[in-house]
Amino acid sequence: KSLSGYAKSGHGQATMKVNGRIHADMWSFPGSTPGINVIETEDPNTSPVDRVGFRRMRFGVKGDLPYNMLYKIEMEFAGGNDSEFRDAYLGWNELPIFRTLLIGNQKRPYGLDHLNSSRYNVFLERPFVIESFNQDARRFGVCSYGYSEDLAWNWRYGIYNQRLIQDEGNYSSDSFQAQVAGRLANTIWWDQCSDGRGYAHWAVSGTWADTDPLATTNNYAGSGLNEARFRHRPEARSINRWVDTGVIPDGDDYALLGLEGVINVGATQIVSEYQHVWQNRTVLPDVNLHGAYVYWSYFLTGEHMPWDRESGTLDRIYPFENFFLVDRCRGGTGYGLGAWQVALRYSYADFNDQDVFGGIGQSVTAGLNWYWSPYARMQFNYIYGEITDRDADNDESTPQPVNLQSGDYHILGTRLMVDF
Amino acid sequence: KSLSGYAKSGHGQATMKVNGRIHADMWSFPGSTPGINVIETEDPNTSPVDRVGFRRMRFGVKGDLPYNMLYKIEMEFAGGNDSEFRDAYLGWNELPIFRTLLIGNQKRPYGLDHLNSSRYNVFLERPFVIESFNQDARRFGVCSYGYSEDLAWNWRYGIYNQRLIQDEGNYSSDSFQAQVAGRLANTIWWDQCSDGRGYAHWAVSGTWADTDPLATTNNYAGSGLNEARFRHRPEARSINRWVDTGVIPDGDDYALLGLEGVINVGATQIVSEYQHVWQNRTVLPDVNLHGAYVYWSYFLTGEHMPWDRESGTLDRIYPFENFFLVDRCRGGTGYGLGAWQVALRYSYADFNDQDVFGGIGQSVTAGLNWYWSPYARMQFNYIYGEITDRDADNDESTPQPVNLQSGDYHILGTRLMVDF
Amino acid sequence: KSLSGYAKSGHGQATMKVNGRIHADMWSFPGSTPGINVIETEDPNTSPVDRVGFRRMRFGVKGDLPYNMLYKIEMEFAGGNDSEFRDAYLGWNELPIFRTLLIGNQKRPYGLDHLNSSRYNVFLERPFVIESFNQDARRFGVCSYGYSEDLAWNWRYGIYNQRLIQDEGNYSSDSFQAQVAGRLANTIWWDQCSDGRGYAHWAVSGTWADTDPLATTNNYAGSGLNEARFRHRPEARSINRWVDTGVIPDGDDYALLGLEGVINVGATQIVSEYQHVWQNRTVLPDVNLHGAYVYWSYFLTGEHMPWDRESGTLDRIYPFENFFLVDRCRGGTGYGLGAWQVALRYSYADFNDQDVFGGIGQSVTAGLNWYWSPYARMQFNYIYGEITDRDADNDESTPQPVNLQSGDYHILGTRLMVDF
Repeated sequence: KSLSGYAKSGHGQATMKVNGRIHADMWSFPGSTPGINVIETEDPNTSPVDRVGFRRMRFGVKGDLPYNMLYKIEMEFAGGNDSEFRDAYLGWNELPIFRTLLIGNQKRPYGLDHLNSSRYNVFLERPFVIESFNQDARRFGVCSYGYSEDLAWNWRYGIYNQRLIQDEGNYSSDSFQAQVAGRLANTIWWDQCSDGRGYAHWAVSGTWADTDPLATTNNYAGSGLNEARFRHRPEARSINRWVDTGVIPDGDDYALLGLEGVINVGATQIVSEYQHVWQNRTVLPDVNLHGAYVYWSYFLTGEHMPWDRESGTLDRIYPFENFFLVDRCRGGTGYGLGAWQVALRYSYADFNDQDVFGGIGQSVTAGLNWYWSPYARMQFNYIYGEITDRDADNDESTPQPVNLQSGDYHILGTRLMVDF
Repeated sequence: KSLSGYAKSGHGQATMKVNGRIHADMWSFPGSTPGINVIETEDPNTSPVDRVGFRRMRFGVKGDLPYNMLYKIEMEFAGGNDSEFRDAYLGWNELPIFRTLLIGNQKRPYGLDHLNSSRYNVFLERPFVIESFNQDARRFGVCSYGYSEDLAWNWRYGIYNQRLIQDEGNYSSDSFQAQVAGRLANTIWWDQCSDGRGYAHWAVSGTWADTDPLATTNNYAGSGLNEARFRHRPEARSINRWVDTGVIPDGDDYALLGLEGVINVGATQIVSEYQHVWQNRTVLPDVNLHGAYVYWSYFLTGEHMPWDRESGTLDRIYPFENFFLVDRCRGGTGYGLGAWQVALRYSYADFNDQDVFGGIGQSVTAGLNWYWSPYARMQFNYIYGEITDRDADNDESTPQPVNLQSGDYHILGTRLMVDF
Repeated sequence: KSLSGYAKSGHGQATMKVNGRIHADMWSFPGSTPGINVIETEDPNTSPVDRVGFRRMRFGVKGDLPYNMLYKIEMEFAGGNDSEFRDAYLGWNELPIFRTLLIGNQKRPYGLDHLNSSRYNVFLERPFVIESFNQDARRFGVCSYGYSEDLAWNWRYGIYNQRLIQDEGNYSSDSFQAQVAGRLANTIWWDQCSDGRGYAHWAVSGTWADTDPLATTNNYAGSGLNEARFRHRPEARSINRWVDTGVIPDGDDYALLGLEGVINVGATQIVSEYQHVWQNRTVLPDVNLHGAYVYWSYFLTGEHMPWDRESGTLDRIYPFENFFLVDRCRGGTGYGLGAWQVALRYSYADFNDQDVFGGIGQSVTAGLNWYWSPYARMQFNYIYGEITDRDADNDESTPQPVNLQSGDYHILGTRLMVDF
């Protein structure tokens, strides 16, 4: 009776968590050269517009079902009229061989910076190469997740369809455009004494992806376009993509190899990744695309970036002292400082090869993170970058004359976030 | 205090359940003749595309309010950008005469296969006639639900607007296009000893629906189109409708009569329905459309299809043994088989009469259902069907020359589902 | 263990309420003159269409986070495919100086009738001037909320972006189109003996809003249009706006002043507001727009409209006796009457000045409210109004010849609502 007014799951055999997050953003573009303006606005004299609003607004449900089954639906509502789903799957825990096996929309297993939750990532937006080679990360597929008993090793591997369907719900084509993908990770050093304030990680990941070279446009079902396309914004929230290969003509299949390394010593962390894509084509010469990034982060207030050894990803950050600011009853103001972190990232991607001019991007990002609590923080990023030899027309599926553009830019970004 | 972290309803006087479901699908179309290709793709040489993704992804809230009131909102997110609502109503329980009275979006009371939840239905998709005469089932209306004290009889009747508004939110027209509809059901046999492993059911249902013969297109509000239209896919997830009368010209009103019968003896069930529509027209000759289906299902593992005598519909299936597969601590693998069911359906619909060429559909579906638990299962369907004399242009509101197409097809479908 | 089946928040440190509301509507337009028809339908012979469906269908989550933080996401699903967010923010309680500080999508602080929840408002739709000067009320901004210890005073003030983004998620433009806005309210009389059955309130509110005179259309990002635009429907749910200034050409900035007064004596309440907008322009002469309303409401059953002294708004209405109607076990029918309220409103707005012909609207609304419980009610409105000299083409951003229309209309509206 004392529980009247509490919410239940639909039937007594399901556990349920209702969770979500709010990320509110403010972006400004204080400087950009004409080449950048063409890429973003198609007009050399119109510079990218500033932006304020929501980056992420999510809530959803997840839980367990008998026996050993689990489910999750998470909705993204930041687009207003255009709701999208994110994680949306059913599956099992504790299976022989497959361990945790999930079926549905879930992250593809390459790119540490994508596998990290946006709640924990050090920088506002992901690096050129990580996002471009794994745009929006989640795809419909079947994936197995496991880790060794001593937590030194973890792995995930699966088969996916390559179309981003979180806005459409389905993929429709006789060419399945499947990919197999996997990641093997090793926490090679873990400082037991400090409960993980020191650790080192490496991982290797990859995919082999079969794309449909004949699908230069969507089919009658509005689906099926060739998935040989890699693109990203300027590691910030612009309207258009600033590196973009377009749909690579005659793209038959591609292979990706990714390497990751993390070293954490107390408040200091260094992270780096390299990824390479070998794009095979049926007639035209093959194309090579690649990129990398490295970042350093440091907690001025002495905390560290926790590590999840079961998934090989960043974990929730706990400030030594939460931020607060209140009037005390007995007069005066009580306060806590929260945690403060500085960070610097260099990112590089070369998407120009043969007849493909996706652009060569370089970017330096300086970051300042103010953690108010384990569940809330504010982030600041200053970005300076340049794009070289990007074909500003190649984001159309209909071929046009090559129109190479180059330029550089300054961007400022701020984000406030909570999760619950 | 031990309840911190538990979710409450907005005020203490509301009870609340948060429930939902995930249905993930895979469909392939291994064979289809040119006539079918024209119907689906407008090109005799382009066959229907395969499909993978989500069929249903729902969550929502429901509960009670003082005194005797109830509410429900259930959202469908499988469409990605295009969210839709499903059940969305408020109402009362325990009213005199009206018993449970619901106002809002709810299923129209005809077609047992539509009144059954998709969580319990034996086949992946509903039969030609049931879906065509009651497309997507739910409409905005007022409906009364009741049953007799001995559970032998149950009934529902109400008045509805005919427009499908779960994607639009409102119906706007001076012609209300109302319909009255009802269903009277009788569980004529119920084996008390086995607690309902044996039972028989019959029901009669019908509607009288007033449509707007002058509304050949939507009005300035983008609404109001004549609702005299009946259509369905091939009892599978194609892109387009394969039987489709189009908007029947000059359709003034129609009457529908539906008959249902169910016999269940232990693991075996036989179900059949027949429906007939009399479409009246102001000037043109009246049109008769009709169809039926019959299916047989059998649990290889001995369970039975439970029956809900309060609503006259299928109820949740409980396997004798849930499916599970785990490594035992002491070595070896533990497992449970779940429940296994086979089923066969024959379905028929004749939507050709006078100047209406919606097509004549026939379909045989073989099904295999693997119940993992009461809350999860996997379904397989193989479908062979044929469509005869379908006017492949009549799904447009603008009249075009008759273009009759015929053909046959093979379809394979698989679904994984959980509900919570 | 007894709590299995209960829903939790995503982590144990968040409290969570899952709340929502359902508003189901029926509108008819029994009479309108040709001028009104042109405004609504562009055709003097086509009158406004009747309407049935959902006005609001919401659910979402809110709660607290350590320390003193709070969050809220509320989604509006009544649009079917077009989901929108409403309140969506994060913030703090108990800050020095700023008290409660919210960042995100929230109501702008002017217009009592907009600050009142739609769950408590006396009439179905808001008055011309309140809605026109604060269309859909919520904007992305930062706002501080406070009240004095003796509850006599309360205030809110903040800075907002002016674009309505609950359907888009973001505002994108180099012109931020910011506004500062605030409201100071005083409960000048509060009858302690009756715990607030008698009270009086006044408030003054205002904004200064910087608009972008050069943005006559949206920019390449589909955003940034000049926000100097004021419009509303006929205090009912028509398809189009019946008073509408269009984007006021050359609108540089505007100031708004609002005055509110409420007197409540037991079952009787009188409420009035006046608002004036001074629209400044760079070259063209300035424009003055203004309007007001007054309403009287009275509970036939003796209840009163509760008042929230912390926010200066209407609070939840508690009937002396809830409505119910049930068959008693021992025979006969038990019933409760609920609460019954009558109300009358006069509303006026003059949006014609200089070259701006938004129309002059006058409207009388008679209302009858039947409260079933604190959480459910039914509302009836009869509206008679007239629009004078509205430029029926001025809702386009491209200038067209002035086409002045005048007319009058009768509207009937009914709403059923629950909240949970």
